[in-house]
Order: sequence, then C-alpha cells, then structure tokens
Amino acid sequence: MIKFNIEKPDQAIGAELQKKIDNLTKPKGALGMLEELAIQIGLIQQTTSPQLSTPYNIVFAADHGVAVEGVSLSPQEVTFQMISNFISGGAGVNFLARQHGFKMKIVDSGVNYDFQPNPYLVDKKIGKGTANYLYSAAMSKEEAELAIKHGADVVSECKADGCNIISFGEMGIGNTSSSAVWMSYFTNTNLKECVGAGCGLDQKGVEHKYDVLRRACENFNQNHKEWDTLEILSYFGGFEMVMAVGGMLKAAEEKMIILVDGFIMTSCMIAAARMYPEVLNYAVFGHQSDESGHKIMLQFLNVKPLLRLDFRLGEGTGAICAYPIVDSAVRMINEMNSFEKIMVTKYFD
Amino acid sequence: MIKFNIEKPDQAIGAELQKKIDNLTKPKGALGMLEELAIQIGLIQQTTSPQLSTPYNIVFAADHGVAVEGVSLSPQEVTFQMISNFISGGAGVNFLARQHGFKMKIVDSGVNYDFQPNPYLVDKKIGKGTANYLYSAAMSKEEAELAIKHGADVVSECKADGCNIISFGEMGIGNTSSSAVWMSYFTNTNLKECVGAGCGLDQKGVEHKYDVLRRACENFNQNHKEWDTLEILSYFGGFEMVMAVGGMLKAAEEKMIILVDGFIMTSCMIAAARMYPEVLNYAVFGHQSDESGHKIMLQFLNVKPLLRLDFRLGEGTGAICAYPIVDSAVRMINEMNSFEKIMVTKYFD
Repeated sequence: MIKFNIEKPDQAIGAELQKKIDNLTKPKGALGMLEELAIQIGLIQQTTSPQLSTPYNIVFAADHGVAVEGVSLSPQEVTFQMISNFISGGAGVNFLARQHGFKMKIVDSGVNYDFQPNPYLVDKKIGKGTANYLYSAAMSKEEAELAIKHGADVVSECKADGCNIISFGEMGIGNTSSSAVWMSYFTNTNLKECVGAGCGLDQKGVEHKYDVLRRACENFNQNHKEWDTLEILSYFGGFEMVMAVGGMLKAAEEKMIILVDGFIMTSCMIAAARMYPEVLNYAVFGHQSDESGHKIMLQFLNVKPLLRLDFRLGEGTGAICAYPIVDSAVRMINEMNSFEKIMVTKYFD
Repeated sequence: MIKFNIEKPDQAIGAELQKKIDNLTKPKGALGMLEELAIQIGLIQQTTSPQLSTPYNIVFAADHGVAVEGVSLSPQEVTFQMISNFISGGAGVNFLARQHGFKMKIVDSGVNYDFQPNPYLVDKKIGKGTANYLYSAAMSKEEAELAIKHGADVVSECKADGCNIISFGEMGIGNTSSSAVWMSYFTNTNLKECVGAGCGLDQKGVEHKYDVLRRACENFNQNHKEWDTLEILSYFGGFEMVMAVGGMLKAAEEKMIILVDGFIMTSCMIAAARMYPEVLNYAVFGHQSDESGHKIMLQFLNVKPLLRLDFRLGEGTGAICAYPIVDSAVRMINEMNSFEKIMVTKYFD
C-alpha cells in the first residue's frame, strides 16, 4: 500500500499570524471565520503572507453495482451521460469552476461505459462499476490500493501545474449509499441516521435504501468480526470515492489546501483521517449539504462549514462555491492596513 | 417628503423561471438557495436570462451625539479616521470590493470632522454628528427628509453608471445603538433583546448601553404617545442610516438588486419597508452578523441570509462577501445545460 508523509503544520508561526490579524484596522475578531481561515492557511503555508495558486477541481466518476437494488432515484446511465455534460461545460460544477477560475479534471474512475479516448477525460478506469456489495465486496483490496494510487497521481499532476488549493467532487449514481455505510462504520453512528434522500428519494425510497444497506452491513459483519479502514473502503466502494481518499492524502502530503465538498467527500475525508489523522489540518469544509447525515459528520469532526446553501448535487459544487471566502481570508491578511500603517485609533480589546 | 414609486415585480414570469431551472441538468432543487435567488432576480429583472452589471457599495458615514454616553468601546474619532482608511483602500470593505469588482462610494453623511475637499469623498454632510438623543431628537424631521433625498441621489449616480446591484454599508461609532432602538420600535421587540456588544463591549458595557437607550426611549415615549416611522428615524438618527434608507428606496424604485449587509443595514431595510413594503422584493440578505439582535430581525422578516461567517464589522463587508453567490445564481440559469440540450436522462421528480 502506498504510503503518505503527512506532516502536522509547525504551530510556531501561529502567534505571529494572530498578531498580524489583530493589528488590521477592524475590531478584534470582527471578520470572524475569515480570521480563522487566514490562520489555518498561514499555518499550512508557514507564512504570514499566504497565496492561492491554480485552483483545481477533480471530479472522480464511477458506477456502483448496488444501484441495481434501487437505492437511487436515477438510473445508472446518468453517470456516463453526466461525463459528457462535464466535458461540454454545461453541468453545475462547470459554471462555478469558470466563475472562480478553477481548472477541472474529469476522471473515469470506473464508469460502466466504454468511452472513446478523449483528451478531456482522464482514464483511471479500474472496472466497469463495482460489484454489488449486497452480496460481495465492491472491489478487491488490491483494486482499492490502486484507486488510492490513481487518486494521488491525479493530484500530483495538479501540483506540477502550480496548484496549491484543490477541491474534489464526484459523480456516481448510488454513491450516497456507500458514503452512508462508510459514515456509519467510521463515525460509529446508527446506520439509519446516515441514510438520506440522495438526489431526491421519498420516504418510502429512503426506507428501501436503508433496508438494502442494513442487509449489506449484516452480511459484512457476519464475515468480518474485525475490520480495518481499507476493508470498509474496498467492501462498500466506490472507485471514485477511494480515489478521492487517495487524492486527499496526496494533497495533504503536498501541503495543499483541500476544499471539502458535501456528504460524499466528507465521508472520504473521514476515511482519509482514519489512516492519516493529520490530513484534517489541510481540510476546509466548504458547504453543509442538504443530505441529512452531513450535519452529523461535520459535528463528528467538530468543524463548521463555510456555507449552508442547501445544495445536494456533489460534483464539487459546494466546495468551489466556498472558494471566494478562502480567497477573502488570504486577501484580508495581505491587503488590509494595519493600525501602524494608517492613523486609526486602535479599537480597544 | 420625497416620494418613491416602488412596484412589486410582476409574478407572471415566475412559472417560466421555475420551469427553466427545473430543466437544468441536476436533480430538482439540488442547487438550493441558488435556485431561489435566480427566481427572485428573474422576477426583479422580468427575464429568464438575468444579468448583473456594475456593482456598487456605498458607505455612508456619520457621527452620533449619543457616543458621549459611552455606548461604544471606540472613541468617536475612529469614524473620521476610517474615512481615510476607506479612501486609501486598506479597510475591510476595500479588499472585498476589489475581489468582487465593486465600485465604491464613500459618503460623508455627517461626520464630526472638517474634511478637505477630496474627489473620493462624496459630500452629503448634514451636520457634524447628530444631537445626543438621550436629551433631544438626533435630527429634525427636515434633516431626515434631506438625508433620504441625499441617499436617493447617490444611488441615482450609481444607476447612471450602469449599476443594477448595490450594497450599502456604514461607518459611525455608536450606530448599533441607533439600530437597536429602531429595531425595538419597528419589530416590537423588547429593547434588551435588541442591544448587543457592537464592536466588542463586555457584559458590563452592554448593560450600560442598554441603560442609556432605555432612558432615551422613556424620554421619547413621554413626549410621543403616538409616532410614525419618520419620527423614530429622526429622533434616534443617525444621518448615515437615514441616508441608507433613502438609498434603498431609490434602488428598489430603479429595480436594482439590494444586497443587505448586517445589523445596522437590516434595521434600515426594516425602516424602509415600513414606508414602502414592496422594497423587500428587491432585498437579498447577505450575511447574518454576530451582533445578537440581527438574527431576531432576520426572523422578523422571515428571510434566510446567504452567509453566516460571524462578521461584526459593517462597512458593507457581509453584503459584498455574498455577491459571488448571487453571481452564481445568475450564471446557473444562463450557463447550465438543459435536459433538452444534452443527452442526460432527466432525474425523476
């Protein structure tokens, strides 16, 4: 298994960052979360003058064998169709990427479709969808290890292009199911609280989804009295999610800022943190999704998302939408006058 | 008193807007608040292809006679000093305006300082600060009427420059006090719940501020068994706030999108809505401030702010910070592929 060298940022520069922020011409703390972000980014980059460069959004796409069980409203074909939509520039993630200057990588992690070679599609296909985990493991451990390596490799390409802030998104009909199961195991939350409406199930649909996942977990538990993180990743998939885990770990190793999207990407970050807890130092949570379990995961991590706009789309949309706030934090610490620089009476503490 | 002609947008186009949004390649409702915003903006502009142009932020600045009672942590001189900071480009509002492409107008609405003529400072000075409303009206009704006209005139200049989206900010040591009183009268909320820490008062400071405002209201009530909106505006000032009310009313008359900032600007919007309820059709609430009463005002209006980043700075910072979300809503409806345009199986309802 590929190893990552993820360092906790040296905290020594924290005091200097705080002092610089407290000397900006505003009451202490008056820019709230921008101030907390500026400190986190300053720590990641080990400077009091941080910079953002060449933001990227990577969309990993794959299919899920469990989709045949009717856990999603949408048919599986939507996964491959949406790839064309991403490439044509007309999906939700595209207008946000254009707006905020993100470069995009669309990755075929394991879509159930034979694409023609396409310069805009990164081929990291591991299989044509995972196996149906109601009956057996979605993928082998070797496939999961390969997915982690592929995810890391895609991030390395972004890094080589000058990227120091990256978001991850996904497309894969059925992947809120995998995320719900990961969440349940990794956060020790009752499965029922982890299962939500996905792209729009009604109450009956959610109950059916829960029932399928409950049976899948029971099967798994019977054969796995003990389990490790990689076992859960590989058993419940999907390829796109395991690649995102690898991408996040590589991004942290490279000291990049990781913008975390919604429900699915947060489950990937939690998985990554089980293997390398220091990855969380690099994570900025962009948006609290409308998917019911997401709030519980964020509380588990004890983090506050930057946005709550009721999205439930994935693709990286919530993460990219939060980018201007991260940019604001960097501009704040670089561009605001200090009390020393301009004649303003310092607000009292 | 200047009259405004504020129309409720014709709702007929609403169904067409909803249909266009529901045919974009995403599950229905999956872009949450962006979808609601796109409908609001489409109604304001009466088109299914809305556009934003030449955003402006107007900072109205003025001093408050009541500041001598120690209702704020900061000395009054900070008001005029911050004007230089705004003009130098080094205040909080400046980096946000640069980031999001806002033009700025800095308006001397009634600062207690004799400025040299400056091409970057709009002179609408009504007085060198208001009178101390602990003892008498902050300004006369004639001055309040003039302030409303001045505010409207500044907005007309922005309109003439092509602006169709505008935010308002303020600078004025002591103005959370005026806002708290306005809020109490206009939303029928117990004064105690309206009084907060402003730029950083401790518990004892908040209690003193409350005590001053309570006595001011008692004096007013003794002499005013009945009151109208203009009476409250003029009695409790300040000049910058009344100008913002005028600016908001003019912006609505001109069918501009109004980005509402925090505690103080929301009290101005509530005042504006008492005179012309239709102004609320044009209001987008940018940010829920850390100032305790703001949440209550937003609940009173039954609106959900776009951001909650714990700012308590004013100047228009919270409003400008929300601009990219409004921009996203407009891009969504203009740039996303429809199910008709690209071969994607429509997500089921």
